[in-house]
Amino acid sequence: MTTNFGLLGAGRIGKVHARAVTSNPKARLVAVADAMAPAAAELAAGYGAQVRSIEAIEAAADIDAVIICTPTDTHAELIERFARAGKAIFCEKPIDLDVERVKACLKVVDAAGATLMVGFNRRFDPHFQAVRQAIDAGQIGTVEMVTIVSRDPGPPPLDYIKRSGGIFRDMTIHDLDMARFLLGEEIETVSAQASVLVDEAIGAAGDYDSASLMLFTASGKHATISNSRRASYGYDQRIEVHGSRGAVAAENQRPVSIELATEAGYTRPPLHDFFMTRYTEAYAREIAAFIDSVEAGTPAVPSGADGLIALALADAALKSVAEGRAVKVSEITGTLADKSVFRGR
Amino acid sequence: MTTNFGLLGAGRIGKVHARAVTSNPKARLVAVADAMAPAAAELAAGYGAQVRSIEAIEAAADIDAVIICTPTDTHAELIERFARAGKAIFCEKPIDLDVERVKACLKVVDAAGATLMVGFNRRFDPHFQAVRQAIDAGQIGTVEMVTIVSRDPGPPPLDYIKRSGGIFRDMTIHDLDMARFLLGEEIETVSAQASVLVDEAIGAAGDYDSASLMLFTASGKHATISNSRRASYGYDQRIEVHGSRGAVAAENQRPVSIELATEAGYTRPPLHDFFMTRYTEAYAREIAAFIDSVEAGTPAVPSGADGLIALALADAALKSVAEGRAVKVSEITGTLADKSVFRGR
Amino acid sequence: MTTNFGLLGAGRIGKVHARAVTSNPKARLVAVADAMAPAAAELAAGYGAQVRSIEAIEAAADIDAVIICTPTDTHAELIERFARAGKAIFCEKPIDLDVERVKACLKVVDAAGATLMVGFNRRFDPHFQAVRQAIDAGQIGTVEMVTIVSRDPGPPPLDYIKRSGGIFRDMTIHDLDMARFLLGEEIETVSAQASVLVDEAIGAAGDYDSASLMLFTASGKHATISNSRRASYGYDQRIEVHGSRGAVAAENQRPVSIELATEAGYTRPPLHDFFMTRYTEAYAREIAAFIDSVEAGTPAVPSGADGLIALALADAALKSVAEGRAVKVSEITGTLADKSVFRGR
Amino acid sequence: MTTNFGLLGAGRIGKVHARAVTSNPKARLVAVADAMAPAAAELAAGYGAQVRSIEAIEAAADIDAVIICTPTDTHAELIERFARAGKAIFCEKPIDLDVERVKACLKVVDAAGATLMVGFNRRFDPHFQAVRQAIDAGQIGTVEMVTIVSRDPGPPPLDYIKRSGGIFRDMTIHDLDMARFLLGEEIETVSAQASVLVDEAIGAAGDYDSASLMLFTASGKHATISNSRRASYGYDQRIEVHGSRGAVAAENQRPVSIELATEAGYTRPPLHDFFMTRYTEAYAREIAAFIDSVEAGTPAVPSGADGLIALALADAALKSVAEGRAVKVSEITGTLADKSVFRGR
Repeated sequence: MTTNFGLLGAGRIGKVHARAVTSNPKARLVAVADAMAPAAAELAAGYGAQVRSIEAIEAAADIDAVIICTPTDTHAELIERFARAGKAIFCEKPIDLDVERVKACLKVVDAAGATLMVGFNRRFDPHFQAVRQAIDAGQIGTVEMVTIVSRDPGPPPLDYIKRSGGIFRDMTIHDLDMARFLLGEEIETVSAQASVLVDEAIGAAGDYDSASLMLFTASGKHATISNSRRASYGYDQRIEVHGSRGAVAAENQRPVSIELATEAGYTRPPLHDFFMTRYTEAYAREIAAFIDSVEAGTPAVPSGADGLIALALADAALKSVAEGRAVKVSEITGTLADKSVFRGR
Repeated sequence: MTTNFGLLGAGRIGKVHARAVTSNPKARLVAVADAMAPAAAELAAGYGAQVRSIEAIEAAADIDAVIICTPTDTHAELIERFARAGKAIFCEKPIDLDVERVKACLKVVDAAGATLMVGFNRRFDPHFQAVRQAIDAGQIGTVEMVTIVSRDPGPPPLDYIKRSGGIFRDMTIHDLDMARFLLGEEIETVSAQASVLVDEAIGAAGDYDSASLMLFTASGKHATISNSRRASYGYDQRIEVHGSRGAVAAENQRPVSIELATEAGYTRPPLHDFFMTRYTEAYAREIAAFIDSVEAGTPAVPSGADGLIALALADAALKSVAEGRAVKVSEITGTLADKSVFRGR
Repeated sequence: MTTNFGLLGAGRIGKVHARAVTSNPKARLVAVADAMAPAAAELAAGYGAQVRSIEAIEAAADIDAVIICTPTDTHAELIERFARAGKAIFCEKPIDLDVERVKACLKVVDAAGATLMVGFNRRFDPHFQAVRQAIDAGQIGTVEMVTIVSRDPGPPPLDYIKRSGGIFRDMTIHDLDMARFLLGEEIETVSAQASVLVDEAIGAAGDYDSASLMLFTASGKHATISNSRRASYGYDQRIEVHGSRGAVAAENQRPVSIELATEAGYTRPPLHDFFMTRYTEAYAREIAAFIDSVEAGTPAVPSGADGLIALALADAALKSVAEGRAVKVSEITGTLADKSVFRGR
Repeated sequence: MTTNFGLLGAGRIGKVHARAVTSNPKARLVAVADAMAPAAAELAAGYGAQVRSIEAIEAAADIDAVIICTPTDTHAELIERFARAGKAIFCEKPIDLDVERVKACLKVVDAAGATLMVGFNRRFDPHFQAVRQAIDAGQIGTVEMVTIVSRDPGPPPLDYIKRSGGIFRDMTIHDLDMARFLLGEEIETVSAQASVLVDEAIGAAGDYDSASLMLFTASGKHATISNSRRASYGYDQRIEVHGSRGAVAAENQRPVSIELATEAGYTRPPLHDFFMTRYTEAYAREIAAFIDSVEAGTPAVPSGADGLIALALADAALKSVAEGRAVKVSEITGTLADKSVFRGR
C-alpha cells in the first residue's frame, strides 16, 4: 500500500517533509502547492511531483494525505478544509496561536472523523524515544521529576518573533509537549518567570528571550524547563527523567564526535547549530509514524488534542509570568464544554 | 603563626573538622568539648588534644578560634557566647532555624566585632570553585541562568527530619547559597513547588521530599533548583551556569572512574554515596580559608549574613509552596531595621 | 551532469551502494548484474534500474562507471575488463588476495588510463575525517603516534574466514589503510603478534582471531593496532593520533546516546553492532567522492595503489608473526620493477 | 600496633612517603637520614622525627621498617644492609639498573628472610585497582588484551635521563609491571620499537623518547604499550583490559572536572601535570599496604621478584629495539640457577 501525499507549502520545512515522504518506500509525493509558484515548481521537479493549487489537491482523488507547512495563520482553516475533504492531515505546530480557535478547529476535525497529527517532531528523536522506552521498561521506576534544558543557538529574526506568538507558544511549546510525553500524567499547574537578557529588541517587541518554568501534576510530579534564545555552543537540547529507581538522560548531539587534547584542555566540537540537522532522523520517523497511522487507520499521535494542550500550557506560562503565581491549566482550558477535542484521533 | 582551636561537638562532622584542623600546618587542635564525655575523650586522644568544658574553652587564653558542631538549637547561643569571649567562630549551618533569632545573634556578633564564618562547605569544593573561577575569568560572559540539580542518595532518619526545619532549610539551603555564590546578584523572588514522592512518613511529619525552585534577580537572571531526597545512583550534585558567551558545568563525582563495557552497555560506577566522601576536599579547604581569615583579620566568607540570607530564601520557598505564588525575599527579611547584620565580617 | 552506474553484485554491500547512488542527485543507477538472477531483479526493481549481464554493461554506451561488489576472486579480472572498456571503476577491497596479482591488475588499469577507486570506506567516516582535518589544520603539531583499536562484535562465519585471506588481509587491512591515512608517511616496518583466543575453529582453519601490530616509519613515527574478532559491547572502532602539540581521537559510535543511572551505576547503550549501520554515512560519502572524481576527471582516492600497499602491509604482518621479527614492507613489495602501480589515479 | 619508620632520603619522593607514614594511624616516623643535613632536618622537624645517620637507623631498636628513597645506585646495597639488620624494607623502584645485581641483592634478602616491597605505586591507584577488581570479579571474562597508553607531560632533565637507565628502565618499567598485574600470566616475549621525536638531545644521550611495545604470553594474551616523553595535555595514563565477555578501562584523571561550552566547543581542563598529584592516593595506599604486610608478617607485594621481572622486561624491550625481533624474557632472566629470587616475600 502506498500513501499519496499533497504538500502545502514549499518552504524550508516543506522540503524536509518532501524528502521524508519520497525516501519512504510506503509513500509517494504527488502534488505540491505554494503561493510562490517558483518554489512549488522547483520542489515538485526535484521529486517528480506535480504543482497543483490547494483547491485541486482538496478535490483530488489521487491524494490520501496532506502535509501543511504554510504560515501559521492559515493552519486552522486548512485543517478544517482538508478534514472536510476526507484527507488525512499532518500539520506543523501550532494549529493556531489562539486556544479558542484551536478548539473550534478540532471540533470540525472530530465531526469529520479525520486523522490529524501535529508536528511535535521531538517525540520522534531516537534519543528521546530511547528515554521514553527506558521509562516504559521500568528502568527508572516511577517517574518523579523531568528536567528539560532547551536553548537555541541564537534568536530568530525579529519579524519572526513578532508573528510567533512569543517564546512560550513558539519555542517552549516543544518542551511542554516533551514534558507531557515523559511525565505520563497531565500537568495541573504552571509557574514561569521570564526576562530579556539576549536582545532588548525582543523585549521591545513584547516578548522574552529567557525563561524558566516549573510544572506540577496532580500526584506531585515535577518538571522544570530552562529556555534561552542564545547558546554559543550550539543547539542545546537535553532531557532528563528522574524516577524512584534511577534516572535516564538524553545527551546533546554534535555532527562529529572527536576530542582534541592540547595544553588548553580536552575539547569536543560544538553541538549542531540548527534544528534541522539536529532532528534529521526525527523528521523522517515522524512522517513514517504518520504514514503508519494513515495505513492502519489508527489515531495519529501527537494528536490535535496534544497540540491544544501544549498551547494551553504555553498560555498558562504567559499568565504566570504576568501574575507572579502558579496558574492552573484549567484556567485556560476549563471553559470548554465539549471535551471531545481532547480525544485526539 | 598558629591558630589554636577549640572544637565544640565531637560527632560525625566534628571529626571531619578535627582532621582538617590537625592536618593543616597553620593550625592546632587544643581542646574538645562534648556533652558525651567518651566521644570528646576519644576524639581528643586521637589528635593529642585536651577535653575541656565549653566554659573552660570560653575562658581559655590558649584558644583563638572555635568550631561549633553541636546540635542546631545551640548554635545561636554559642555563637553569642564565643563572640563575646573574643574568639573567632566557625559554625556549621544553620545559625538557627528562625530568621529573627539569627538576626538577633548577628547583632551580637556585629557588636562584639567577632569573626564568624558559616559552614556552607560546597563553596570550597574544587570543582564548584573552578566554575566560579571560569565565571570570574569572563569565560562565559555575563551570567544568565544557574541550573542546580541536587539529590541525596536517600532520606535522613525521620527523627532528623523532624528537627531539621524541613527540606528547604536543611537541604535546599546549600543550593540556595550556591545559587547566590554563582549568580553574583541578590535573589529577589522565589517560586517553589514541593511534594512527597519518596516516603509518606516524611509528609506525615509535615515535610516534603521532592522540590523544584525558580529564583529571579532584579536584572532578570534565573536560577532553578531540583531537589530530591532519593537518588539510587548516589549523591547527585550538579551545577551549571549559562552566560552570554557560553556555559560552564561541574560534573558529578565518583570514587573511582572506570568504565566497564559488556553486552549490557558501557557502565561507570555510581557516584559517591555520602556527602562526607563527596566533599572531603571541600571540608579541608573550608577550614583552611577560615584559618586564613583569622590570621589575616579579614572578613570570613560565607559570613553570618550569608547564612541569614540563605535561610530567608528557604523561608521564602516554603511560603511560595504554601501560597502558590512568587514570594519576594524582602517579605521575609524586610522587617529588619538594622541592616548591619548583612554586612558580614 | 549525471554519472550513470552499473552495479556488479546485488548482495549486502551491493544494496548499500545502490542506495548511495540513487540518493545522490548527481548519479543514476542504470543497470544491475548478478549471477543470482532474482537478487539482481529485486534490487533493480527497487531502484528503477535494469537487469543486465556483465557483458552488456561492459558494452553499454549509457554506463559511465561500475561498482564491483562481486566475490573477491573476481575483482581483479573485472577491474581489468572494465578498465579496458573505458569505465570508471569503484571496487570493494581487496583487489585480490595476492600481491603479484594486484600488481598485474594495476598495470592494466594504468595502461588503460582508467579511474579506479578501492573501497576503504572508513576514510569517509565523518568522525575519522574530522580527525584528519584536525591534523591538517595543525591542531596537534607533527604526527608522532597513531593508536588504533578495532574489534568486531563477533567472528564472521567460518566459511567466510576460509576465503578471506586471514584476519590481516580481511580485517586489519582497514586499520592498516587508516594508519597510512593518518601517519602521512609510508610505513617501513611491520611487527605483529597473533593468537587464537576467541574460537579454536578459527585456528584450525589456519587463521588468528586476536592480533597486535606495531608499525614504524622512516622518520620514527609509530602506529599500533589492536584487533579482536570479539567485542561483547559492539563494533569497537577507535583511532587516536598523538602529535607534538596534542592529540586527537575519534570516539566510538552508538545508535542512541542516552545514559541510565541506577544503583548499578551509569550505563550507556552498547555500540553499533554491525559495520553497515556504523558506517552508513561513510558509505554515502565514499560514493559521493567517487562521483566527484569521475565528474572532475581527477584521480580517485583511495587508489589501486592504496589497495596494493595495504595488502602488502597485511602480508608483512603475517610474515612477522611467522618469523618473530620486524618485517620491512619492501620485502613484500620490493620485487616490483614498475613503480607505476603506486601512482594511483 | 604501631610500625616505627626510618626514612632514608629526604627528597621529593621522601616527603611524599613521610606524609603517608605520619597520616597513617598505624605508623610513626621516628628518624630521617639524608646526605644533605638541612634536608633531613627540615623534613624531620615538620613531622616530629629525629635526624639520624644511616648507621644509627640500622642499629636502632626503635625502628621496625625503612623506606629507601636515596639515589638508585645506592638501593641494592641499602636493601642488603637493612635486610641483614632485620628491618622490613620499602624501596623505591628500581632495585638496580643491572639484572645480575638485582638477583644478587634478592638472594641476600631471601637469606635474611626480610620483607621487601618495591615501589610500583600505580598498583595502588584506586582506579587501576578497580580495574583489577572488575577482572577478579569476572566482569570481563578471560583477559585477552591489555592496552596501556602512558605519556609524560614532558621529558625529565637530561641529567636525569643519563642516569635513568633509559626510557624502558625508567618509564616503561611502570607500564610493564602494570601489564603483568593485569594480564594475570607471565609475559614470554617482548617486541619493541623506539625513536627520538621529542628532543634530539635525548637521542644524543643514547636514549629514546617515544616507544611502542607488544607483549605476548604463553597462552597468547596480548599487551601493547604506547609511551611518549611528551603530552601537551598532561599526565596521560590510561589502561584498558579486553576480555572474552567485555572490557574495562581506567579513565584519565584531572584536578577538576568541569566543562566549559563556548562557540569553540566543549572543553574540559588538562590532566594532572605531575605524577605526584596524579598518584597522591596511590602513594598513601601503597604505604598502608606495606604497613599491613609488616604487621601481619605476610609477603609484601609488589615483591623484589616483581621488581626483577619488570627490569628484565625492560631489558628485553631494549634488546628487541636493537635486534628488530621479538625477544624472549628468558633470554634475559634464563641464566638464573637459583629461582628463589622470584619468590618474593
